[in-house]
Amino acid sequence: MKAWQFTEIGKPLSLTEVETPTPAADEIVVHVRAAGLCHSDVGFLDGTLTPLLPFRPITLGHEIAGTVSAVGSDVTEFALGQRVGIPATIEDGPGTEKNGGFAHEVAVLAKLVVPLPDHVPFDQAAAATDAGLTSYHAVHVQGRVTEGTKVGIIGLGGLGSLGAQAALAAGATVYVAEKNEKVHEFARSLGVEAVSTDIQDFKDAQLDVIVDFAGFGTTTDGAIKTLRRGGRIVQVGLARATAELDLQTLTLNEIELVGSQAGTKQDLIEVLELIEQGKLTSRVTAIGFDEIGDGIGKLERGEVIGRLVAVFG
Amino acid sequence: MKAWQFTEIGKPLSLTEVETPTPAADEIVVHVRAAGLCHSDVGFLDGTLTPLLPFRPITLGHEIAGTVSAVGSDVTEFALGQRVGIPATIEDGPGTEKNGGFAHEVAVLAKLVVPLPDHVPFDQAAAATDAGLTSYHAVHVQGRVTEGTKVGIIGLGGLGSLGAQAALAAGATVYVAEKNEKVHEFARSLGVEAVSTDIQDFKDAQLDVIVDFAGFGTTTDGAIKTLRRGGRIVQVGLARATAELDLQTLTLNEIELVGSQAGTKQDLIEVLELIEQGKLTSRVTAIGFDEIGDGIGKLERGEVIGRLVAVFG
Repeated sequence: MKAWQFTEIGKPLSLTEVETPTPAADEIVVHVRAAGLCHSDVGFLDGTLTPLLPFRPITLGHEIAGTVSAVGSDVTEFALGQRVGIPATIEDGPGTEKNGGFAHEVAVLAKLVVPLPDHVPFDQAAAATDAGLTSYHAVHVQGRVTEGTKVGIIGLGGLGSLGAQAALAAGATVYVAEKNEKVHEFARSLGVEAVSTDIQDFKDAQLDVIVDFAGFGTTTDGAIKTLRRGGRIVQVGLARATAELDLQTLTLNEIELVGSQAGTKQDLIEVLELIEQGKLTSRVTAIGFDEIGDGIGKLERGEVIGRLVAVFG
Repeated sequence: MKAWQFTEIGKPLSLTEVETPTPAADEIVVHVRAAGLCHSDVGFLDGTLTPLLPFRPITLGHEIAGTVSAVGSDVTEFALGQRVGIPATIEDGPGTEKNGGFAHEVAVLAKLVVPLPDHVPFDQAAAATDAGLTSYHAVHVQGRVTEGTKVGIIGLGGLGSLGAQAALAAGATVYVAEKNEKVHEFARSLGVEAVSTDIQDFKDAQLDVIVDFAGFGTTTDGAIKTLRRGGRIVQVGLARATAELDLQTLTLNEIELVGSQAGTKQDLIEVLELIEQGKLTSRVTAIGFDEIGDGIGKLERGEVIGRLVAVFG
């Protein structure tokens, strides 16, 4: 079968003929129907994340949805033809630790795999495996957002727009701070309470939680100055590695600042349920299998709106 | 009766003849046996905290222990002669919102007052009402320290040494980082696991919680770099108002940073129980009632070791 493989730093992915995988006893093979392209893939190619890869050439692609095409001898929980998704993970995950989903078939440990609800399209499922579970983990697990929580969302890009939808789905009241005013109309269309360019405009709203998907440092500091006493900041975005923060206000107001990194299989199950209920949708730009190589270049050059997902069969 | 009163910024406390208080219906009057002198008192006199005072002249002294000398008509839970302590609080508290304990008698809302266990001396009780409950709140409430928790304590001054004792009393394993090596022997005498000048020396210990009683910014940043994944930093000290922090490590390791400010009546009850059990002791320097005015000056000049407590009766 054909697969898009990483060979060396600075070179584009190469389309190579590789052996079709067969499942080990504890694995299944997934016939890939959709595979998302991720900024991490750009990092694997340009050297910044390359040290994380265990071998090369390696088939990339870690945002995978498809159908079960082969089942290992010890696997009882999946059947041939079943629709599944694979949560993005660096622990034994395809596309990061093993050959991935930029190919027609991919082998994966059965214990990592999640069944898809009946009405979740493959492209939405693929987008959910990484951006979806990351934003859900930030809002629900680290942010502890539930019905009635007043939530500020900083940055309404790919992750932020999913985070806002996840908070709204939980019954939270959502306030969006997004520098790019062109996105404000989109924010309003989601049903948020208010939109502004600066989180500090919501100081009077007595926010319980602020999730910072931007991470410019000034955004974290603004969140500290904005939250109600005892409120919680979840840090997801990392546009800057370090930041000058107002520790005095954090201390005197007993503010909590907590990091959020990726998510779990359980997070993916819950995100897929929200998609099934029509409460969460990723903005997907679909391309074909042959366009995956070019797609990484477009991602690198910032030419993509929404999630870039290769849809094939 | 005589009382030490604040009159205007830049002037020392003046010893004045004032009326002996009588209790309102929901108040008791406490015959003061010990009143702690606090750095906040220095702040009330030098202008930095003066705006918090509701009127002047006002009798200062907010770390109070004594016996009940009069009971308001609606008060049923206290009896004449009963030994009591008053948690330091800015909500209706004597010495901050009302006339305080640098006097022989002080009126206080009965609902604020805590009975003293039988064997807690008045000087220890007075010290517990502010430094004690603040350090206990940081370690137990905000830090959630329990048996087996691995705790780093940064700064072994007045608050830090109480925090270390509170953690040890809970059955935690305690690691102390204190720049001043002269204090290291004292730290060891408390029964801590290890002592160093830099918290980052304990990186291999996989600490669950670090309580920063110093607050130099570099200490918070060092804590972020030291904790285990998912660990928790409690910020108490504020030697610097702002700090440059490693948000990348905080985010990728899902570290929590939370502020801790003062404490509650319940915290005081629990601290007094630790004192009763011999598990927590403040280092007290006792002075007489007549020395309170001079004592504030000594505090301001940094001439005091441990807590300065006026003991009279």
